[in-house]
Parts: sequence; structure tokens; C-alpha cells
Amino acid sequence: MSVDQYRATFRGCPINASRHEPESIKATLQRLADATGDDEQIDNYGSGELIESFEREVAALLGKEAAIFMPSGTMAQPMALRIWADLARTDYVALHATNHVALHEHNSYQVLWQLKGCELGESHRVPLLDDLKAAARDPLAAVLLELPMREIGGQLPPWDELVRQSGWARAQGIKLHMDGARLWQCPAAYGKSLADIAALFDSVYVSFYKDLGGIAGAMLVGDADFIARAKVWQRRVGGTLYALYPYVIAAREGLARHLQALPERRQQARWLAEQLNQLPGVSTWPKIPHTNMFRMRIRCQPEAFLVKGERWMQQHNIALIPPPYRTDDDALHCEINVGDAFDFLEKDEWATWIQQFGKDMADTLSA
Amino acid sequence: MSVDQYRATFRGCPINASRHEPESIKATLQRLADATGDDEQIDNYGSGELIESFEREVAALLGKEAAIFMPSGTMAQPMALRIWADLARTDYVALHATNHVALHEHNSYQVLWQLKGCELGESHRVPLLDDLKAAARDPLAAVLLELPMREIGGQLPPWDELVRQSGWARAQGIKLHMDGARLWQCPAAYGKSLADIAALFDSVYVSFYKDLGGIAGAMLVGDADFIARAKVWQRRVGGTLYALYPYVIAAREGLARHLQALPERRQQARWLAEQLNQLPGVSTWPKIPHTNMFRMRIRCQPEAFLVKGERWMQQHNIALIPPPYRTDDDALHCEINVGDAFDFLEKDEWATWIQQFGKDMADTLSA
Repeated sequence: MSVDQYRATFRGCPINASRHEPESIKATLQRLADATGDDEQIDNYGSGELIESFEREVAALLGKEAAIFMPSGTMAQPMALRIWADLARTDYVALHATNHVALHEHNSYQVLWQLKGCELGESHRVPLLDDLKAAARDPLAAVLLELPMREIGGQLPPWDELVRQSGWARAQGIKLHMDGARLWQCPAAYGKSLADIAALFDSVYVSFYKDLGGIAGAMLVGDADFIARAKVWQRRVGGTLYALYPYVIAAREGLARHLQALPERRQQARWLAEQLNQLPGVSTWPKIPHTNMFRMRIRCQPEAFLVKGERWMQQHNIALIPPPYRTDDDALHCEINVGDAFDFLEKDEWATWIQQFGKDMADTLSA
Repeated sequence: MSVDQYRATFRGCPINASRHEPESIKATLQRLADATGDDEQIDNYGSGELIESFEREVAALLGKEAAIFMPSGTMAQPMALRIWADLARTDYVALHATNHVALHEHNSYQVLWQLKGCELGESHRVPLLDDLKAAARDPLAAVLLELPMREIGGQLPPWDELVRQSGWARAQGIKLHMDGARLWQCPAAYGKSLADIAALFDSVYVSFYKDLGGIAGAMLVGDADFIARAKVWQRRVGGTLYALYPYVIAAREGLARHLQALPERRQQARWLAEQLNQLPGVSTWPKIPHTNMFRMRIRCQPEAFLVKGERWMQQHNIALIPPPYRTDDDALHCEINVGDAFDFLEKDEWATWIQQFGKDMADTLSA
């Protein structure tokens, strides 16, 4: 049993505890064509009402002056750090060991962007003010904070802690950059608006294809001078595409469709984690999710679990456990992001299926 | 009269001497939805049959081992030079003063990619073998050659000259990289296949939204090792998008739709240049186009020409002279790329309209 096969079956399942409802390319393109006005004009190298009005919309949502649409977060984030580094005349930036910039970009921030990374706190927990102070032994241009922190189960620092960190950084003249790939999940967790949260930061990156179900794409948001500098860097890095409209339209549609549902998704995630924690061998991280995502460890015989679990998905057309991002000898590690595919069933139906799953899979699970 | 207004009217003209037929966003998305198979699967971070099969198709067309789809040429080209520079353990690369890398990318190849540029020949003409030899006073990793050279009216070096340059570079261990943004135009000019031409080069960049009418996007093509390295750099630079399918499908459709027509477009361009050269004050560069593009100088009173010319386009719904890329006190400089919008009229109809245009605009043109 390959994980690829498990993943393919998982992704094709419309009734899914983690993900938005799957949609074919053909259906997506058709939906976007239908959502496009007859008179909407093609954007051109980042200019045009279509892209600029969406940038203004997102900037306003985050309470910032300006925004610029980017093809990817991998492009946007080291760019933001480079801008702050140039302005501060130092190449040092602090980031958590689990951030995307540190883990998944082949050290681009060093090799391509010529930045120097300083450690920020410990890899299994959110950074605290003392961690920022420790990192600032080097002359820091900026600190990157991720909200929520994906690789540690979507954890968030307490609001007061975040406010303290922001105040301290401002007093030091150190810029705060937010990796807000999943920022959309935070208002419900903090009881604050997107703008309240963004106000603690000098620059923010947000993503459109995760919680919001776009095709790809991201935005950098900040003050007008920062965005003007990002426009130059975007051209340098090859991100000023001749036209970006498929991504812009998909992002615009996704924002309108998914943003308001995220508080409800968070409630669903917390309920789901409670249910899953009752299965033998399953423990979620964190135990009570902070947002609509969490991770979990499933103590089991991995190969047997995947074979039987894939058949179970095929049989019932319901996907409960995502493909593992890590496999140990005696456990699988998986990540749940509750999306709109959760709405196919009522909670009591989910509860019944979760109990059924636990019974059917009992011989592969370790108590 | 702003050039922007002239440009907007020009772009909206379906009967157009330079460009493909205009298409709305809505129509493009609808066309792409129709062209997509029901079972075509979304690509994911550069993987999947949709994107990989198209990469194989283009690699085969160019007679190379492998290819990788890129969001833009601005991303692809300095990346190719960086790869050759790393392998050669030198940062020196030679490029012509008018290349896109030198002119339109805010010096990204230096500032971001840490390359050192060496001049190659003179800005108004194609580079010759002696120019390559002169540039090689520095320890060159690679030479970038553009085919055809857009900023000098789509000129091409003679085939034998190109063969000599390639042979010399190989003997020196210097890599040849092709800026083939408009490579599609070259087979008709050289009487050679795409693969014959690409065989003279170690790496090739091609574009899908110019001659081929895609939305955006490019490809790097070369041997398997080169492309494997490009895959790493693509992730570093943020070009490995979560999904690229709108660009891939548009490029695939564009290749199928436009490539075969390009020899005819070249004939049309040569015929059109001959006609335009008969108007008072108009001279094309080159006099006889090498490919299906050329530039021209129009001696005129620029403001009066643009005001009257815009009205003429509005009145007849025919666009003959593109918006200027440069305006002098006594002349406009424009670029023609013959596309499928030329086919709206027969040549004798175009000839009639060109004569009419000359008469109607006579008082703004300088003999």
C-alpha cells in the first residue's frame, strides 16, 4: 500500500473531515468563467482594476494601506524580510525552526535572498517574548511570526503575549512580519478582527488557496512604501506575470465563499478533535485545537492501517483520517484542516461514522 | 491624447495588424473549460500528468531531454544563468545590452541572482563571434543569445554565424543559453526545425503568451540534470505554485492553435513592412523583417498623429499602427507582431486600408 494511493482515494472523497469539497479543473474553470463579469478586463503586469481592486479589498480587510498579489508565499515571505533587511542595513532575521521559510524552501532565504536566519524559541512551541529578546543578540531587521503555526498543530500564542511581543519589537525598531498563510482562522480564536491582529505587524503575508479554496496565490500587505518596494522585488524575482487573473478571480471568489464560515469550522474542528481523542491510540495536538486545524498521532500498525483505511474510504465514500505527513514504526502522524467538505454530514452522523471507524479499524489500532 | 487611450482603443480593435484577436477573460476561461477533459487532474507543486505531459511535449519539440514549466521568463532566465554559473564556478555571464534580463528586470540578475554581466557586442545589431570572444576576457560561465532579438526589430544572426558561435562556445566550455521568448518564429526564417535550432544551445527559455496566445508562463528546456537543478531553484524563487493548470492548459491550447501558422505570419509581416515603407515618413527596422515582428519609425507630429490615429481606429474598427514604445519630438517608434487578427482581412483589403490611412493621416506625417 503506497501512501500515494491512500492520498488519491482521500482526495477524491467528497465527504471529508479535512479539506474543501473536491472540484475538477473543468468545473473550476467553468465556475470562474460564470463568476467573471462580461466587461472585466485582463490585468497586465500587476496593473488593472481587476487585480488592484482586489488588492484594495484585502488591504482594507487587514486595515493596512496597500497590498500586492503574489504568485506564492515562498516568493512573498523572504521578499518581505529582504525589504526590512535592506531598510535596517542588516541581514539578520529571526524565525521559528518550523516555519515554511526554514523548512520547505531549500534555504532560499539564505541562498537566494542573502539573509541570515536566527533561531526563535523551541521547535515544539510558540515563541515567547524572551525568545525574541534572545534572538535580538544579533542585530535583527525583522522577526517572522506565523499565525497559526501550522507545523505545531495550528497553535497560537495567547493574545496578550502577542501584544507584548509587538510592543517590544516596535520599541527596538525591529519589524514584525506575519506568516498569515492561515490568518483567516485567527479572528475566531482571538475574538479580534483581522485588522486588530494585523495591526500588531508591519507586514503580512496571506494565502488564498488553503482556507479560502483558491487555485494558488498570495498577497503581501503593509504600508504604501513597503508595497512599492515589493513591486520592484516582485519584478526582479519574476513574479510580475503578464496576467494573473485566473488566480485573482479564484481568490476573490474563495474569500467571498469561505471566510465567513471559518468560525464555524473552528467549532467543528474542536468537536472533531474531542471525538477523535476517544478512539484508541489517537491523540490530537493540541488536545483542544486553537483554530480549525490540528495534528494527531495515531498509534497503530501503519501498513495495516493504511491498507484497511483506504478500503474503508472506498467502501463508505467518507474520508476521516488524512494521509500521514510522517510515519513511524508504531504510529502515523496526520493533519486535519476542517473545510466545507465537513458539511456533507451532520455532527451526529459524523459521530456515528467515527465510532464505526474505530470499531472497523480496531485490530490495527494500539490502545 | 494619452498613449494609454490610444493603447486601449488599439487593443480593443479586432482587425489588427499586430496581435492576436482580443478575447475577454470570461471567453478565455470558458474556452479553457471546454478544452479540459473531464478526468484531467489538478497539478500539484509541479507534479501531475497534466503539467508533466506538456513539459515532455515541449522538450520533444525542441529535441531536449527535459523541460519545466515556469510562471515567467523573468524567473526562468537568470535561473538558467545561475545554474551554469554554479557549475562553472564563476559568476560571469555575457548578454546583449538590449536583452530583457539587462533592460526590464531591475538588474535582478545582479541584485538577486548574484551574477556579473559582461557586454556582448553593440546594442543596435546582433552579436557576432568576435563579440563572444571579446566578452570571454572574463571567465564566462554562459552566453545568453536571444532569437529573434526583440528590441532590434526581431533580427536574427545568419544561421552559419550562429553555428560558428555555438561551436566556439562548446570548444571553450562556455554554455549557450537561448532567450527564445519568440523562438517559435525562427524555423520559418532559418528553414530549420525547432530542434535544429535548440541543438546549438545548452538551455532554452520559451514563452507561451506572446506568439502562442497563452495567459502567461514559460518553460526552461535542457538536459535532465539542468532541469533537475531548475526544479530546486524554482522552489527557492517561489515559482513552484500549488497549481499552474490555468497557464498550462492555455499554453497547450495556444501551441496547438498558433504554432503552425507562424510561417504564414512571417510572410504577412514581410508583405506588411513593404506596404508600410511606402507611406510617407514610415521606415521599418529591419527593412525586410527576418521574422513576424519588426519595428518602425514614423516621422510625424506625435500628438497630432495619436489624436487623429485614435479617431481613425474608432471610426473604421481597424488597428494598423500600435501604440508607440518611444516618442521623439518628431517621430514615433512602434513595434508590429503579426498575429491571427491579421486574418480578418485579405491582403488587398489591407492594402486599400493602408493607402486610405496614408491619405487620411497625411497632414500629420512628415515626408
